[in-house]
Amino acid sequence: MKVAVLGATGMVGRTFVKLLEGHPWFEVEKLVASERSAGIRYGELVEDSPEEFRDFEVISLEDFLKDPGVDLVFNALPASLAGDVEERLAKDIPIFTNARVHRYDDDVPILVPEVNPEHLRLTEVQRERKGWNGFIVTNPNCSTAILAVSLAPLRDFGIKRVHVATMQAISGAGFFGLSALAIHDNVIPFISGEEWKIENESRKILGKIENGRIKPALFEVSAIATRVPVLHGHTEAVFIELEHGSTEKIKEAFESFDPLKSLSLPSYEKPLVYTEVPQPRFHRERGKGLTVTVGRVEGSDSAFKYVITGHNLVRGAAGGSLLNAELAKKLGYI
Amino acid sequence: MKVAVLGATGMVGRTFVKLLEGHPWFEVEKLVASERSAGIRYGELVEDSPEEFRDFEVISLEDFLKDPGVDLVFNALPASLAGDVEERLAKDIPIFTNARVHRYDDDVPILVPEVNPEHLRLTEVQRERKGWNGFIVTNPNCSTAILAVSLAPLRDFGIKRVHVATMQAISGAGFFGLSALAIHDNVIPFISGEEWKIENESRKILGKIENGRIKPALFEVSAIATRVPVLHGHTEAVFIELEHGSTEKIKEAFESFDPLKSLSLPSYEKPLVYTEVPQPRFHRERGKGLTVTVGRVEGSDSAFKYVITGHNLVRGAAGGSLLNAELAKKLGYI
Amino acid sequence: MKVAVLGATGMVGRTFVKLLEGHPWFEVEKLVASERSAGIRYGELVEDSPEEFRDFEVISLEDFLKDPGVDLVFNALPASLAGDVEERLAKDIPIFTNARVHRYDDDVPILVPEVNPEHLRLTEVQRERKGWNGFIVTNPNCSTAILAVSLAPLRDFGIKRVHVATMQAISGAGFFGLSALAIHDNVIPFISGEEWKIENESRKILGKIENGRIKPALFEVSAIATRVPVLHGHTEAVFIELEHGSTEKIKEAFESFDPLKSLSLPSYEKPLVYTEVPQPRFHRERGKGLTVTVGRVEGSDSAFKYVITGHNLVRGAAGGSLLNAELAKKLGYI
Amino acid sequence: MKVAVLGATGMVGRTFVKLLEGHPWFEVEKLVASERSAGIRYGELVEDSPEEFRDFEVISLEDFLKDPGVDLVFNALPASLAGDVEERLAKDIPIFTNARVHRYDDDVPILVPEVNPEHLRLTEVQRERKGWNGFIVTNPNCSTAILAVSLAPLRDFGIKRVHVATMQAISGAGFFGLSALAIHDNVIPFISGEEWKIENESRKILGKIENGRIKPALFEVSAIATRVPVLHGHTEAVFIELEHGSTEKIKEAFESFDPLKSLSLPSYEKPLVYTEVPQPRFHRERGKGLTVTVGRVEGSDSAFKYVITGHNLVRGAAGGSLLNAELAKKLGYI
Repeated sequence: MKVAVLGATGMVGRTFVKLLEGHPWFEVEKLVASERSAGIRYGELVEDSPEEFRDFEVISLEDFLKDPGVDLVFNALPASLAGDVEERLAKDIPIFTNARVHRYDDDVPILVPEVNPEHLRLTEVQRERKGWNGFIVTNPNCSTAILAVSLAPLRDFGIKRVHVATMQAISGAGFFGLSALAIHDNVIPFISGEEWKIENESRKILGKIENGRIKPALFEVSAIATRVPVLHGHTEAVFIELEHGSTEKIKEAFESFDPLKSLSLPSYEKPLVYTEVPQPRFHRERGKGLTVTVGRVEGSDSAFKYVITGHNLVRGAAGGSLLNAELAKKLGYI
Repeated sequence: MKVAVLGATGMVGRTFVKLLEGHPWFEVEKLVASERSAGIRYGELVEDSPEEFRDFEVISLEDFLKDPGVDLVFNALPASLAGDVEERLAKDIPIFTNARVHRYDDDVPILVPEVNPEHLRLTEVQRERKGWNGFIVTNPNCSTAILAVSLAPLRDFGIKRVHVATMQAISGAGFFGLSALAIHDNVIPFISGEEWKIENESRKILGKIENGRIKPALFEVSAIATRVPVLHGHTEAVFIELEHGSTEKIKEAFESFDPLKSLSLPSYEKPLVYTEVPQPRFHRERGKGLTVTVGRVEGSDSAFKYVITGHNLVRGAAGGSLLNAELAKKLGYI
Repeated sequence: MKVAVLGATGMVGRTFVKLLEGHPWFEVEKLVASERSAGIRYGELVEDSPEEFRDFEVISLEDFLKDPGVDLVFNALPASLAGDVEERLAKDIPIFTNARVHRYDDDVPILVPEVNPEHLRLTEVQRERKGWNGFIVTNPNCSTAILAVSLAPLRDFGIKRVHVATMQAISGAGFFGLSALAIHDNVIPFISGEEWKIENESRKILGKIENGRIKPALFEVSAIATRVPVLHGHTEAVFIELEHGSTEKIKEAFESFDPLKSLSLPSYEKPLVYTEVPQPRFHRERGKGLTVTVGRVEGSDSAFKYVITGHNLVRGAAGGSLLNAELAKKLGYI
Repeated sequence: MKVAVLGATGMVGRTFVKLLEGHPWFEVEKLVASERSAGIRYGELVEDSPEEFRDFEVISLEDFLKDPGVDLVFNALPASLAGDVEERLAKDIPIFTNARVHRYDDDVPILVPEVNPEHLRLTEVQRERKGWNGFIVTNPNCSTAILAVSLAPLRDFGIKRVHVATMQAISGAGFFGLSALAIHDNVIPFISGEEWKIENESRKILGKIENGRIKPALFEVSAIATRVPVLHGHTEAVFIELEHGSTEKIKEAFESFDPLKSLSLPSYEKPLVYTEVPQPRFHRERGKGLTVTVGRVEGSDSAFKYVITGHNLVRGAAGGSLLNAELAKKLGYI
């Protein structure tokens, strides 16, 4: 399948391009960016471009929209541009997008393949309701994606309440999103919109489809999001109330969680690996960035705590979106 | 009063010495350290020594114990040495100590002047039970001290449960306690013993004296402690369940909290200041390091969250201990 | 004397304001910034504003220029704005400016009081040639200022050649001048225009006045400027060829360098202090940021090396400029 | 060939092990460490051990020396242990060592394959003089290795003098070699012994063999070594005096430098790549860590400057040593 990457020169776009190098199912046909970058070789814009794409001429979003000519789109445009573009393209082409714009639409899934693969069915609802040939599939906000992977195996214990404090990497803020003077030797306990996203997206992801829309899971989520001086890798301290469980059972559930193994998706990696002390610098590259490392499980009765760390640009953005597309293809949605 | 500082060359010891420079009530008579440092000028051992103490000759612990000759001791020795020394000295001299050894003794207070000044009464229990002329007063673990200051004004709302994730500065680990390779570009979600201390010390601090011993407060505390690449200043993300309250009332309680103002203690500073986004690099020096900065108060019904940051070496160690001694003097215990 | 600070909300402007708090000679009358900040309290714009200026209403540059009403101006405007403003104001008012625009003019001194106080005479040349009542005095680029202080006492040894590699702090790039993603875990060996400035400004500063203009010193300077992940404090590795000298004599020259001591300028501090291993985090605040720390002097014959570190915002910018004004006042130029 | 890695659990030892995974010529037979690690699985000691070696049982140095049983040894032991061990083993086995102990021996080469491959002939001198079957080949100190690669192509221009300021990564100090409190937000312009090594090793490497010993190159080298808060990758600011040259010719010499290309050594990578602004975080992994990135070439007449960055653990230690062994094998020395 021929694919385009929109917003190919940003942090998430570059990650898409890297992950698509040599992909067995998806062939990158077009790298799309702003007018300013149009006509320039990708390798000139992105110093560490994969060899394969170094000589690709970047095309402008405007030109791309005139004649997409691809079978599938990965979207890493900023939210301010993404909304209109996605609706326009979805008439004809499946879109897998990292933008938040359509995440909260009734009939658009926030998909994490290992967690809620059945939500892909919403793409049929979209097609039906809107008469589209394509559809929109979103992936969650980066810290939510990492959290959701750890919540999935705990569903059997009855999740009642989640308190999560995130320690997020600077690459989550984009190239120029964070001044060195702001974060140097500092923790910034405020990331605009982030806590709301974690609280709402995780409940939608773990929700159920009823009558063609998601009914969010009922547990409560409360988040405090902070930025720390780490390059890549969001770390999250999680306090969780369960209906039942034990540290042994929880560890066992984390360690055995491997739900899509049998599907043999090209980018699939074991989604959770247990380690005594998860740490972003040491563990962010695990499973090519798709594996979330979990550890420090402690607690008793119904109150437990644990820590997770995962790569915000891969598991939390481009990698998750790519897995979404692979799942959709495997299951025949595209 | 003549005072000695034990462990005067370590991180906490240096902070004691700095804070005691020009103190109106306490005059440093002896700077005590290990055999290795004995006989050396303090200014040679501690490059940024206050001018006043630069020419002090450091004496060994052994020599000090032979003939203390001071009215009061501030103890910054490591726990491995502190226990015996404190019991020996307390027979004659009041000890204000940062060491954890006696914190959990029935008749030893973990004192935070703004939070539980009435616990000073335990010093009388000690004197009575043990026939001591002196006594031992401890200050809490650094992250607990910062947390306790924020919990005190919330007692009126009925604290039911606290979940706290800490992001602790590297100076909390001591000079050689943390390798650069371990924490560079990293978060380490494990600090030995820290979570247990937070969970138990905070309940003792907010407890009540009954029959000459502390009955810990009944609320639950669950902590996840992490180390982050920040020099000084522990930041804590707090989720709290209260019996009642509102964000407005909580902010108001934080802002008006100033319980010892009327005592005019020499080192006293307003213990809590409200700021939208508390950040260690910007706020750790507030109130000469004794003020805890609180912000990000949100929530509803009974579930709230907020963020605090405070100086781990001052509010969390030497500064707190000095305030303890000032309070004891003001109230006539010494 | 009534003074105004232009660009009072930027990094250098804030440092001016801090240093002027309680100044015995200069009273801040006006804090000037962009239209956007006009009418707002200084304390709202600058969280750590000195108490004294918290309630100052910031005025716009436009309004200020209509009616300056001050005796002296400190200018921290960016170069793009500074040129015109300075020429306009200098007709009536002495300007002490951190902007680079006029640094290379024939009759404008780049002044470092401890190094070339006699260059102040150029202000008379300006007044004469241009018919101004005021004048323009610049201070050097930050890394040059720190270097020049160390070169001054070496003049007697006959400076022939200087190679200097700088390791500059992030605060030198301004609030938003450097993205966290660019400098995190990195060294960036490029700072636009910096090397040229070091090479040319240092020779002008150490030059002589001949016929009403500076004849630059003849030694060669070659610089490589790098940015490192340090908050404040530029460090410089200096290789120097001298006509004669020895490590002992050089150390002695550094240690005894104190040329303006007898003038009793209010902000004056010993300009050089010798320390085995100068380090920005430990030494940047020395002498309230005006002292340059020098160490690691080694070499033989004519080839020597040493290391310096100094506060880029104080010695390298606002503090140097304030000293310039104090010198000018003391010597009767204003 | 069967090889052993001595000191396999340290920073450099781990890098050896990583680079030897799947090596076509050398098969790791023994991983040797201290008594403390003996009998433990390598994967337990080294969390990110290559899969291949995870179940290797580490053996003690003592046991290894009793019966080496390998064809070649890579030595990453600390200098304090390395000396005796190397002399003992070299009687029978070729040693490629990162330890400094024998670097300055007359008949021991400090080898950088792309720079002085002919120095391998000294191994014959060793064998002859000492009656050994094996020999000792050292690689230079990390910062020297990176510098030497850049000096090699400049030999044709007549190197007269080099001034170099290094900005060295924390991983060069070993696991526990540097406290977080020392380097956080800091530059430390002192690394014990480093400057002497750079000054002397680089002249030996670029020297000529005369009568069975190295005659060092005659140019002067002066170094200032600093530590900066960067994980991996030493950056060096180089000022160089040449007999003749131009920036164009120097760039051309850097870009075309590829002396061993035709030998097809398994680990060989282009040793120098030109980039406008070399930066450790972006370029340290180039050529699997063996490529030195050079840029910022400027100058005129005989005085030039440039900047280099390279991976201290790979190019500067284990990778260089492995290349040495590959070269020795290719040329028939082993």
